[in-house]
Amino acid sequence: MEPLKVEQLKINYKTLEEFQKFNEYGLPELSMLEDLEANIVENNSQSPFYGIYRDGQLAARISLYRVSAKYDWYFHPSQDYYEIWKLEVLPQYRGQGLGHALVSYAKSLFLPIKTNARNRSDSFWRKMGFQPVRYNPERDRGESPYVWLPPGVGLKE
Amino acid sequence: MEPLKVEQLKINYKTLEEFQKFNEYGLPELSMLEDLEANIVENNSQSPFYGIYRDGQLAARISLYRVSAKYDWYFHPSQDYYEIWKLEVLPQYRGQGLGHALVSYAKSLFLPIKTNARNRSDSFWRKMGFQPVRYNPERDRGESPYVWLPPGVGLKE
Repeated sequence: MEPLKVEQLKINYKTLEEFQKFNEYGLPELSMLEDLEANIVENNSQSPFYGIYRDGQLAARISLYRVSAKYDWYFHPSQDYYEIWKLEVLPQYRGQGLGHALVSYAKSLFLPIKTNARNRSDSFWRKMGFQPVRYNPERDRGESPYVWLPPGVGLKE
Repeated sequence: MEPLKVEQLKINYKTLEEFQKFNEYGLPELSMLEDLEANIVENNSQSPFYGIYRDGQLAARISLYRVSAKYDWYFHPSQDYYEIWKLEVLPQYRGQGLGHALVSYAKSLFLPIKTNARNRSDSFWRKMGFQPVRYNPERDRGESPYVWLPPGVGLKE
């Protein structure tokens, strides 16, 4: 079995074609495509996406968006953190630890992490060392936020 | 066939039991349950959820969260708007217009609406008269925002 190598994805037509295989494909991806077509972003610029290739195709991806400390409503002390979106493993590659490898990579960046535990994924996030926050309707607006705290970081509440 | 009647859901143990049948069940629902158990909210208080009952059970639901004008980054002029979350129809009741009825109800409140078009639901939202916004990474953070504009309301951008 190939080792699991997490790599940062470059913005190019090949990556955007791979993205179309994923269920969560929407305005962020279309916007990247438009920016590429309009030469607003350069071919092979860095994207906020990281992925794992298997059999020559993108098998899993994650988006890591760095939120600036001034928008941090979760952590104490306030600091930059990563927001995880669009963690998705293509159906034929599930159960092989790809999701685990992507989240472990995010944790290796040593900033706090926040995600939205959708579709009853709570047990996955707990297994990855995340914890639920105390739900605050104004801040969380229907999300189910789970966070990962590096040493020395606490919650705001 | 019963007519489709949209009703605002009350916070009580019956409603929270019905919610467990839906895929999108997370911290917001658990928080309601805890508040009910701790008598922080009264039994039969209004919830932000609306639903349609079929055969005596909750068959579809939507959450309509009213966002105050001071947090409005989408509409011009800035105003209160509704954010749609958790629009979900139980599998056995799909294709019967329940989702359509819930979104039509939201539109009848005559405020602008914003939602996140997940899982390639774009064509549904377009059919309902929604339009995509121009993606802004800082504001939209990985979402695919679609909006519905009542007469006289435009977009900020």
